[in-house]
Amino acid sequence: MTAASPAPAGTPGPAASPAPAPGARRPVYTFLGPEGTFTEAALLKVPGAREAERVPAPNVNAALDAVRAGTADAAMVPIENSVEGGVTATLDAISTGPELRIVREEVVPITFVLVSRPGTRVAEVRRIATHGHAWAQCRGWAAANAPDAVHLAASSTAAGALALLEDTAQPGDAAICAPIVAEEHPELEVLATDIGDNPGAVTRFILVSRPGALPPRTGADKTTVAVPLPEDRPGALMEILEQFAARGVNLSRIESRPTGQYLGHYFFSIDVDGHAADARVADALAGLHRVSPETRFLGSYPRTDGTVPEVAAHVSDGAFAAARTWVERILGPDAG
Amino acid sequence: MTAASPAPAGTPGPAASPAPAPGARRPVYTFLGPEGTFTEAALLKVPGAREAERVPAPNVNAALDAVRAGTADAAMVPIENSVEGGVTATLDAISTGPELRIVREEVVPITFVLVSRPGTRVAEVRRIATHGHAWAQCRGWAAANAPDAVHLAASSTAAGALALLEDTAQPGDAAICAPIVAEEHPELEVLATDIGDNPGAVTRFILVSRPGALPPRTGADKTTVAVPLPEDRPGALMEILEQFAARGVNLSRIESRPTGQYLGHYFFSIDVDGHAADARVADALAGLHRVSPETRFLGSYPRTDGTVPEVAAHVSDGAFAAARTWVERILGPDAG
Amino acid sequence: MTAASPAPAGTPGPAASPAPAPGARRPVYTFLGPEGTFTEAALLKVPGAREAERVPAPNVNAALDAVRAGTADAAMVPIENSVEGGVTATLDAISTGPELRIVREEVVPITFVLVSRPGTRVAEVRRIATHGHAWAQCRGWAAANAPDAVHLAASSTAAGALALLEDTAQPGDAAICAPIVAEEHPELEVLATDIGDNPGAVTRFILVSRPGALPPRTGADKTTVAVPLPEDRPGALMEILEQFAARGVNLSRIESRPTGQYLGHYFFSIDVDGHAADARVADALAGLHRVSPETRFLGSYPRTDGTVPEVAAHVSDGAFAAARTWVERILGPDAG
Amino acid sequence: MTAASPAPAGTPGPAASPAPAPGARRPVYTFLGPEGTFTEAALLKVPGAREAERVPAPNVNAALDAVRAGTADAAMVPIENSVEGGVTATLDAISTGPELRIVREEVVPITFVLVSRPGTRVAEVRRIATHGHAWAQCRGWAAANAPDAVHLAASSTAAGALALLEDTAQPGDAAICAPIVAEEHPELEVLATDIGDNPGAVTRFILVSRPGALPPRTGADKTTVAVPLPEDRPGALMEILEQFAARGVNLSRIESRPTGQYLGHYFFSIDVDGHAADARVADALAGLHRVSPETRFLGSYPRTDGTVPEVAAHVSDGAFAAARTWVERILGPDAG
Repeated sequence: MTAASPAPAGTPGPAASPAPAPGARRPVYTFLGPEGTFTEAALLKVPGAREAERVPAPNVNAALDAVRAGTADAAMVPIENSVEGGVTATLDAISTGPELRIVREEVVPITFVLVSRPGTRVAEVRRIATHGHAWAQCRGWAAANAPDAVHLAASSTAAGALALLEDTAQPGDAAICAPIVAEEHPELEVLATDIGDNPGAVTRFILVSRPGALPPRTGADKTTVAVPLPEDRPGALMEILEQFAARGVNLSRIESRPTGQYLGHYFFSIDVDGHAADARVADALAGLHRVSPETRFLGSYPRTDGTVPEVAAHVSDGAFAAARTWVERILGPDAG
Repeated sequence: MTAASPAPAGTPGPAASPAPAPGARRPVYTFLGPEGTFTEAALLKVPGAREAERVPAPNVNAALDAVRAGTADAAMVPIENSVEGGVTATLDAISTGPELRIVREEVVPITFVLVSRPGTRVAEVRRIATHGHAWAQCRGWAAANAPDAVHLAASSTAAGALALLEDTAQPGDAAICAPIVAEEHPELEVLATDIGDNPGAVTRFILVSRPGALPPRTGADKTTVAVPLPEDRPGALMEILEQFAARGVNLSRIESRPTGQYLGHYFFSIDVDGHAADARVADALAGLHRVSPETRFLGSYPRTDGTVPEVAAHVSDGAFAAARTWVERILGPDAG
Repeated sequence: MTAASPAPAGTPGPAASPAPAPGARRPVYTFLGPEGTFTEAALLKVPGAREAERVPAPNVNAALDAVRAGTADAAMVPIENSVEGGVTATLDAISTGPELRIVREEVVPITFVLVSRPGTRVAEVRRIATHGHAWAQCRGWAAANAPDAVHLAASSTAAGALALLEDTAQPGDAAICAPIVAEEHPELEVLATDIGDNPGAVTRFILVSRPGALPPRTGADKTTVAVPLPEDRPGALMEILEQFAARGVNLSRIESRPTGQYLGHYFFSIDVDGHAADARVADALAGLHRVSPETRFLGSYPRTDGTVPEVAAHVSDGAFAAARTWVERILGPDAG
Repeated sequence: MTAASPAPAGTPGPAASPAPAPGARRPVYTFLGPEGTFTEAALLKVPGAREAERVPAPNVNAALDAVRAGTADAAMVPIENSVEGGVTATLDAISTGPELRIVREEVVPITFVLVSRPGTRVAEVRRIATHGHAWAQCRGWAAANAPDAVHLAASSTAAGALALLEDTAQPGDAAICAPIVAEEHPELEVLATDIGDNPGAVTRFILVSRPGALPPRTGADKTTVAVPLPEDRPGALMEILEQFAARGVNLSRIESRPTGQYLGHYFFSIDVDGHAADARVADALAGLHRVSPETRFLGSYPRTDGTVPEVAAHVSDGAFAAARTWVERILGPDAG
């Protein structure tokens, strides 16, 4: 049931790396735009992405739909922020609609700068344009350093910064954005750096592709699933968690999300340590499918931190194989 | 340990109802503003709120801080939306800082209208201003009926609508807001009604006060807690859930939230059926405090839907009282 | 892994029924002797046993060793008494040594008679010979009706009765035995009937054979295992029980037995509802083998009471098959 | 609810030590007789027992009934043998009828000798009288050294030995008994020593008294309970075990026993680490009483091996006290 020997690292399947054969067309990556966001920074960490075609998308849904439609080979989107939590647009979009697969993750440190048109001082700032998430992460700095400034909602941190260059900008306008934007736009002046309230803030991004062969097992992998909470049985959430606990599979992330049907109707977005080709993970997946048949598998892929989980003897691949052999011997040659 | 007889319904404690004694000053309610949002509609459902002083707050934190500072007696803020999920600003704000208590919940159906300055037709709409949450809930309608319109981020649905009345508004501008805004501003024209993608969408709001006597037990109550995930023990989430399961206490909501310290560091915001004065809930709270000593109690209050949970015999108040008596008899008169 | 279609009822394997082909030698059954015990009564309920060769064995070990050595085809031994509990000699003997398989169960009502040489009255009885188990089940009657009589230990109820016919018997000697002994030995007088303290007492017997094809699945089956308690993990007993609970497999008997190595070193003898060819049972067996690799499978066989267990949808054969297919599709064609 | 400070070790309650005040009558101990058994050896280890009145009882029930009736202050009876398992007569007798309390345990190594009338050689032995339990423990030695000898059931090991001195004894008769019998009866010749098949075999005995103050908490204690399996809820056994697991209370013994009503109707005899005055044990007892109201408390008493269990922080007395205080503060001064 489970692959004892992962595919050799040198021969990834098509989904694991959308890189085309020599001579073929350049791969197309889309990402949550506009250019100059942390998401593009995450994409640039993917081998080959600098040489590939990179298409910003106006929102997460548009990025994923481009992959589904085949106009992009893969999409880079944020999934989790150490300060703000799960990126709900992503969690929801990958869990519904035509199936997609996460083939890679990237973690990017989040640092913010305050920019304005040249000549503005921090004390003169009256309006700070930025995305709500960025505002939430710099609120403490703003209250301490620009207490009179109000927040102006922007559709992205880059959009807020670039609007400063337009005619509608007023004196006292500033923006909070990623350092990359200031680097690429010298006409913006950096008033303050590292203004995030949480110095260690990071965002985790995922590279999403169409279903295909799984990225090969590395030993330090992560598996993501979306599990609707079955409603016909009390204690269903514990039943779901027990599928992992009983096989020694560790959870590294769990988010509850409404299905949108009515209050209290959830699905859970879950990351676990291990690869679907690990016997304990494969067995847990089978258990999940039984208790919640609409469970969606969203991918197995290498962890960026390379952490190899400890696997107890009784949930090792060997233990599962020995158990299967033992039961088959009991059932005899006539058994299915 | 647990109150066998709830306080009579006619004599609520101060926290349960911030209404002052006759002759005293009017109570002050704050709410997530501006006026004209669903939050104000929720507040107006509270008995006495129409006669009380009502102060809009610019954001959830400001509303709760007014309660903490004593400048408001209670704050109405959204906590959960059937489409968008938990309101993370609220979940986070009530779970940190000086302690607060939820004393009441209200559920309000969410319906949206498209408004503009008079004379605009839907087909002419080019920009739609609204809050991101509202946009998310009308995206389907917009794609079908105003495919060329782009979203303009607004700090609230009301703010987006009122901006249409300012000089900076351009032809083709429209806004998505609550019906109440259009009613109060006849100078806005309603282009379309009921444009939400989920006809049954509702938002749940909570009335938050300073700690005080609990609202009396009604038999159809809800209790809210914030439980940090202990990190020193594997399987801690299951251990938390077992505190409820072992006492037959049903979960009606669970949200994971990052503490903001680093990826994977969570707390859980949980609603359960029952009142802290129910023996099974009190015992579960004690268990939670043991496994996660930083657990925060956020209130016991009546459910709006009046649903009375079924309580199995072995987790009834009587079973807990009998068990306590039995153990005390074993330990003898010298014990405890 | 699990047989979707049980072997047709008309073609049992060799182990399920030791009956030979026409013209072959008569099957040989051994049983816990001597003749005239409840065990022989249980054996006579097996189709064909009346015509077969029946060899009494001096004790349970001898009976099972005859099967192991091939001098008997099967052995009937007691395993559980509704009053006295598990028959420890049997529980221990089938759980160690060369493997054996339970292929059938029989339940026999236990009734006792008091016998003596003709002419003795109950009031004159001074010594009552019988097996310790029988004495334990008639102690109340004896205290009430023959308060001055002492118990004389006998190696079996039949032996105690037959000793009355020997020269060493003294006046005032009596014996407690099964009715069958009195019927076959008219020279014994029945002083009292139905003298057991528990009128509904029954003993369950098992027919034990060498390993072979399992008796076919009937839908109302029982599976027996012996599971050593792993010592290297706390909570191991719960881990064992969870293998059944997680698959909706109901326990109908559990006995703890010392392994004899030191105090606190146990194995558990367990009966569950269902057949090893049921997917949920096969999966639970595999789980048991992982958590306690020395787990011994002792057979799947029809229940005498014909009770068909209710099987929830998520642990049906269909749910297991669908889950396996789903995981195999995820792993792709290259997966083991 | 739980005693924070155990009674000082120097002032045991009456039940903990039946020793009378100076000048009062000598205490009376009964034990499973006859004299010369391992049970008497266990009793003699109790401080003061050598000077007390010691009355052998014909069986376990008689010993316990003497305590219930007040004709004995305490009874020493076997409860568990490392080879044969639980002593079912004791497990059943202390779990039914008027309540009793275990106040002490003793562990005695079990060694056997073969005795006969002088002049017999092992090779000449034809019949070996002994109790069934002793026979079971020397069966291997007998098969190897006296293969032609048959077992003669005796009501106790001492009785079998003493019968050799009576007129009815025949040439070739021998007995298996405790060394103490041979020491006290020089007219018996010891043919072989240490003939038990398990050299490390031990039996655990308990001293049973009427209910009274518990023996003081020592930190290395054991608590015994009898828990009927509730029948109205599936998974009840796991629910029972979870009462201990959830409070970090370790099981050191579990035996299933039939209630005698019908097949499959059980109670469980359970030993756990800890004293009823430990908060985690008291809380587990309360939980047991809820899930199985007929649970019987059979005593808390010092372990003979003095092992102090590791107690995790979240189940320490301090954690329970802090949790209770926290909940009481939530419920406010008006609560229960």
